[in-house]
Amino acid sequence: MRNLKIILAYDGADFSGWQVQPDRRTVQGTLAEALERLTGEQMLPQGSGRTDAGVHALAQVVSIALASPVPVPNFMLALNHLLPPAIRVLQIEEVPPEFHARTSAKAKTYRYRIFRGAVCPPFLARYVYHHPWPLDEQSMTAAAELVVGEHDFTSFAAVDPERVQRMAATEGNTSGPAGLPGNVRTIFSSAFCREGEELIYTVRGSGFLHHMVRNLMGTFLLVGKGTLAPCDVPRILAADSRSANPGATVPASGLYLVKVEY
Amino acid sequence: MRNLKIILAYDGADFSGWQVQPDRRTVQGTLAEALERLTGEQMLPQGSGRTDAGVHALAQVVSIALASPVPVPNFMLALNHLLPPAIRVLQIEEVPPEFHARTSAKAKTYRYRIFRGAVCPPFLARYVYHHPWPLDEQSMTAAAELVVGEHDFTSFAAVDPERVQRMAATEGNTSGPAGLPGNVRTIFSSAFCREGEELIYTVRGSGFLHHMVRNLMGTFLLVGKGTLAPCDVPRILAADSRSANPGATVPASGLYLVKVEY
Repeated sequence: MRNLKIILAYDGADFSGWQVQPDRRTVQGTLAEALERLTGEQMLPQGSGRTDAGVHALAQVVSIALASPVPVPNFMLALNHLLPPAIRVLQIEEVPPEFHARTSAKAKTYRYRIFRGAVCPPFLARYVYHHPWPLDEQSMTAAAELVVGEHDFTSFAAVDPERVQRMAATEGNTSGPAGLPGNVRTIFSSAFCREGEELIYTVRGSGFLHHMVRNLMGTFLLVGKGTLAPCDVPRILAADSRSANPGATVPASGLYLVKVEY
Repeated sequence: MRNLKIILAYDGADFSGWQVQPDRRTVQGTLAEALERLTGEQMLPQGSGRTDAGVHALAQVVSIALASPVPVPNFMLALNHLLPPAIRVLQIEEVPPEFHARTSAKAKTYRYRIFRGAVCPPFLARYVYHHPWPLDEQSMTAAAELVVGEHDFTSFAAVDPERVQRMAATEGNTSGPAGLPGNVRTIFSSAFCREGEELIYTVRGSGFLHHMVRNLMGTFLLVGKGTLAPCDVPRILAADSRSANPGATVPASGLYLVKVEY
């Protein structure tokens, strides 16, 4: 069998997320169908991680085991021809048999786009979170820096025990405290920047729990509004409990999987 | 009654065009519903012209006759709150009673975006026409210049006699030849430009027939491919017949109503 690494971009707005589900249009399911039409082989493409409904990807990484001898350049053209325009293959390469898109990943980068203008252009509505109300962006920047390092991120994870356990078992993470195994992640960088009318958060880490970026952003928004202070972030982190975190899970529309490193 | 001029932007991808139709999601119908919810008044907002399914607007102009005394700034905020994010009110102003969005229009500008790169980013797929194959852009530029001036554009109009007649009766146009009344329009400017990987056509004219911009573009694409020469364009114009024009009607996704002048 050949092992192929595929880099995909997708507009997640009209998909029920990455993971295949019965009777739902998902990115993984749509890709599997196109691969089967192209090669006659049934397979389940393995993503670097799941993205939820509405979340976008600039460079999701996928690995597939394939018998067909289709040359790589033709494979990419044919696959893009079969896929809907909302999913594009950007790159395909042959990789050693031990490569796996999820378990081989060393770091991931996510981005969250907040549109700050009074009226959000209709052409951006699917691709940002519109938040025109006042925000103290300096405090948000200070808060973002405080999550850098190795932490137990239980306070920022979806309360979804089964899934958390499952992800803990599959996402390569180092170690966890005895009480909460598997929720420790290392954040390498976490910062806001301004691009015109957009406030953009970029975070790079060893791995991410379910809803972690959207929950971090919900907390940073409370800091921006003055409901929380930056110094509340270490306190919330230390509580190891989602209920200790008053931040909401912000909408999926602003979130992008930007890069996966191996 | 007050007479209000509303400027709207919309992402046309998920609408069955401007004009209200039973059981279809249209921009005019969606706007009428929001206006009724807001004011309790039933009305049919008058657009500067119809846009077809999938066509976008950066600044469609709409006029409405209204009894409610809602102040203009509140009116805009409330309307944007009620409208879906794919439709945004950019501006509202009180205008004299004789103003009518369609019959008062003196000029309109449309734009057509062609993405020329090999792989079209999924985030652009709804907003451009993807044409990665070779095109002689210089010949297209030469062809575009040849439609400037006053011409009968029957060769570039949809073969839809009833609608052509109806539009002729409603779109203020000067005069037409005896055989084909109503299809004369004046094009003030018509030009291509390059913006990165996009080839962009911008056309400004006194008015446009149904499908006219998309049919002009279909003809210019045949010039770009070498099937036609620029000098075929005046010949096609002079034929006053859609069947004399081998150009296709290009997809709606690339078309934008950019500006309406009064």
